[in-house]
Amino acid sequence: MSEIELLKNRILTEGQVLPGNILKVDSFLNHQIDVKLLYEMGKEIAARFKGTGINKILTVEASGIAVASLCGLVMEVPVLFAKKHQTSNLGGDVYSATVESYTHGRTYDVRVSKKYLGSADRVLIVDDFLANGRALLGLANIVEQAGAELVGAAIAIEKGFQGGGDMVRSKGIRVESLVIVDKMDDKGNIIFRE
Amino acid sequence: MSEIELLKNRILTEGQVLPGNILKVDSFLNHQIDVKLLYEMGKEIAARFKGTGINKILTVEASGIAVASLCGLVMEVPVLFAKKHQTSNLGGDVYSATVESYTHGRTYDVRVSKKYLGSADRVLIVDDFLANGRALLGLANIVEQAGAELVGAAIAIEKGFQGGGDMVRSKGIRVESLVIVDKMDDKGNIIFRE
Repeated sequence: MSEIELLKNRILTEGQVLPGNILKVDSFLNHQIDVKLLYEMGKEIAARFKGTGINKILTVEASGIAVASLCGLVMEVPVLFAKKHQTSNLGGDVYSATVESYTHGRTYDVRVSKKYLGSADRVLIVDDFLANGRALLGLANIVEQAGAELVGAAIAIEKGFQGGGDMVRSKGIRVESLVIVDKMDDKGNIIFRE
Repeated sequence: MSEIELLKNRILTEGQVLPGNILKVDSFLNHQIDVKLLYEMGKEIAARFKGTGINKILTVEASGIAVASLCGLVMEVPVLFAKKHQTSNLGGDVYSATVESYTHGRTYDVRVSKKYLGSADRVLIVDDFLANGRALLGLANIVEQAGAELVGAAIAIEKGFQGGGDMVRSKGIRVESLVIVDKMDDKGNIIFRE
């Protein structure tokens, strides 16, 4: 089975559709982590972005860290995770962007120390989910502030019906989602885009 | 150079000692992540706990996730990360424990879904730092609530002078820290335990 088929299979057998368009996959991605599966996903992402000169992965805490780390291991590049909690001790000199959270109905800031992102960097954004695209645009904005080159974004699960992926692509950003969910309902039906 | 020497070297060259006994290593562990280094650390941890039948790693968001994930990849076991932010959508049925944060001077809850931890599990707790030991005891408490077996804890950097490691060991918990800092000061001197 390909990495993609493995991932689809896990979503179909273990994913739970909750009210508010939430797809809960906390048995292997968001709470418990199947690191072997994420490593396989990392290989697929590396293959798609082969030859693009990526030298840094950018993600956001918390659930993006695992998939980004396994991907970084395959691609042999460091991973930088944006902080979104004020308790984080980053020091003063940061890039920041404000993100509207779909799931939680509020806004938060994502922040990255200026020390670790600059004009020499060719960046791949990696995240577990893409829904309305706000988190991704926030990270893209940080890449832009740093004067770095955004090569693209790799997403484990895109919720295509929420439109964020198409919106981000329309801005000229390359988005590679391992799976795109086009439809889901509270009876547990989940339809993937072909 | 051994994994341990590599890690010590990075701490000495890149670590910053900040007021309040904070050792900032955000160039390779807490913000930017050197995943290759963490993978090497995972190999060392796996070697130390070889033959103990560990089938699950438990850590806590956010900065524990990377080291736990790389360790889980080496050990071929799933990683479970405790949530510490109320925004997390875990559902109702959770184990929880209250932790007093040294760095931030407040308390928070760590929570794990009951679905992913039970009496069949032999658990290794993995975390990036061990300071006063409260986070580690919180996780150990969750393992106990689940009726699981706590095999031990693996820590990247123990701040030995804060006493948490010794306190946890005195409760009979096996703690393996890759490096133990016995002394540090704001002139940047960092002394490791032999």
